[in-house]
Amino acid sequence: MNADPATRLDATPADDRLDRMQALVRDELVRVNAVILREMQSPVQLIPQLARHLVGAGGKRVRPMLTLISGRMCGYEGERHVNLAACVEFIHTATLLHDDVVDASDLRRGRETANALWGNKAPVLVGDFLFSRAFQLMVADGSLDVLRILSNASAVIAEGEVMQLMTANDSTTAETAYFAMIEAKTAKLFEAAAEIGAVVAGRPEADAKALATYGRDIGVAFQLIDDALDYGAEDAAFGKTVGDDFADGKVTLPVVLAYAAGDGEERRFWERVIDHGEQREGDLARALQILRRHDAIGATIRRAEQRGEAARRALDRFAASRERAAMLDLVDFCIERAY
Amino acid sequence: MNADPATRLDATPADDRLDRMQALVRDELVRVNAVILREMQSPVQLIPQLARHLVGAGGKRVRPMLTLISGRMCGYEGERHVNLAACVEFIHTATLLHDDVVDASDLRRGRETANALWGNKAPVLVGDFLFSRAFQLMVADGSLDVLRILSNASAVIAEGEVMQLMTANDSTTAETAYFAMIEAKTAKLFEAAAEIGAVVAGRPEADAKALATYGRDIGVAFQLIDDALDYGAEDAAFGKTVGDDFADGKVTLPVVLAYAAGDGEERRFWERVIDHGEQREGDLARALQILRRHDAIGATIRRAEQRGEAARRALDRFAASRERAAMLDLVDFCIERAY
Repeated sequence: MNADPATRLDATPADDRLDRMQALVRDELVRVNAVILREMQSPVQLIPQLARHLVGAGGKRVRPMLTLISGRMCGYEGERHVNLAACVEFIHTATLLHDDVVDASDLRRGRETANALWGNKAPVLVGDFLFSRAFQLMVADGSLDVLRILSNASAVIAEGEVMQLMTANDSTTAETAYFAMIEAKTAKLFEAAAEIGAVVAGRPEADAKALATYGRDIGVAFQLIDDALDYGAEDAAFGKTVGDDFADGKVTLPVVLAYAAGDGEERRFWERVIDHGEQREGDLARALQILRRHDAIGATIRRAEQRGEAARRALDRFAASRERAAMLDLVDFCIERAY
Repeated sequence: MNADPATRLDATPADDRLDRMQALVRDELVRVNAVILREMQSPVQLIPQLARHLVGAGGKRVRPMLTLISGRMCGYEGERHVNLAACVEFIHTATLLHDDVVDASDLRRGRETANALWGNKAPVLVGDFLFSRAFQLMVADGSLDVLRILSNASAVIAEGEVMQLMTANDSTTAETAYFAMIEAKTAKLFEAAAEIGAVVAGRPEADAKALATYGRDIGVAFQLIDDALDYGAEDAAFGKTVGDDFADGKVTLPVVLAYAAGDGEERRFWERVIDHGEQREGDLARALQILRRHDAIGATIRRAEQRGEAARRALDRFAASRERAAMLDLVDFCIERAY
């Protein structure tokens, strides 16, 4: 592996299953990183500087990996999936840049965010640049199907982000509304990333749809486990502190479930700390107590497991292969992070 | 004309020449507005609400008009140019939304900006949505050439915006750097808008390039006249107050030229008011005096006239037609705003 931080792929001891998948597409991932580094260049120096900051922070590259591995599982032997995986990562990166501006976040992947370092202006514009560059790369690839899938995904992601804005401090958010939001905001890019693997391989629509289902379900599971971890991760390796979402007044599934099941006093608690953002010492402990009382973390994890099971089933139609095994591993990886 | 503010096209007495062009594509513009209103819909209510605010503020629709009229001048008789003109306007609108967040502007087209009304978060995300929607519409149109032109334009516009960020408070900005910036930030979308008219009409590359040149030159002229108007418009009809750019510490061509020609005392003045933003009473009058001493406004208008002349020459290869006459009128419109 390259020692350049921009091409380094993070791995923690808990990531064994992810490691196996990474090993399978290692060479292609190195080429994806090379495309990313090449395509984020611009005569306008601030653009690669700022892009490198976020891309250089690594991340697990789960989304581009989905494109690579699903392409390979579908029997694709060409090179187009490498550029398209880079497109997926560019769209993801653009979303993160805009997200951090919207959330006024200071930390991402354990480093200061671009907006914390450069203010809000540059990240908005560099996000626009990376997004445009992703479309330029897709145009160079030449598949209108891929362009359709990723432009649809981008519109849906933006819708999901706006939904999140509207439900951000509303503890009365219904479970269905919450799922609609994370299917759009988080799962849609997983869905698109997996689907285009089948498209480059020229597989029939039904295969593409099955991979889209796999991606969507794994994306939802991924988000739900994230939600659960925020109220209970023992392991600091995930770079997230317990209670971050809580401190931000973010509505996540554990809160949605606990609010729905809660009594009047508990609901008033959630409304004070989430809707009005009035938090005092001891509130996080109280929140954890209420969540435990309603088994809200457990219920969140169980819903993630159900979606993981659905993701596994979506792969039934594909013949056994190392790639298919790695994609099943990825489901386990998503879920096992919670334990 | 429709009385709905979202489909109203502004016209001021000074806009006679623009009127003639609008009259020529009136029916198509009504259809463009219908596409815009239809395509900005989303189940997420805040999106059409916010989009309607900006689209409803009107504007002259110069960019989509360029696509319509150049398509017609090239002999195109179909309907694709209507959807593509809407794409151009969506990209423009997305840029404005992000621009106003970046500039922290309070007013646009004489109304409060989206960010002044909704804060910074929603305009960033709704901009992303409109941008994605533009690409969805292009994919539905199905021309990879159009997708290439507009994805390139979007990347270049973002680069231009970042350039502007870097030169915003630098009165030593060189004339060449300033032109590179406005060719990217402002003129690129004019260029693309005119070029795709030739593409939908299936005209040869040389015609498309001539229209691209026309669009680029008219876009630069448009921006330069804007720069000049900010230091001398007599007419309040343009919705811009004299000295807005100055108050924002924005470097525009008059300042670039006056700085380059200025003596030590004058340069220190520009550095104080533009670079350091330390402005006192009487500074605008002093600025106008220095600009007059170096004929910087006149020189800016003359450069605009040169670009206008180049735009006219680019149309030489096309046979005389009402459309060509209207496109020549548009050049005059751009320049005559200064008088």
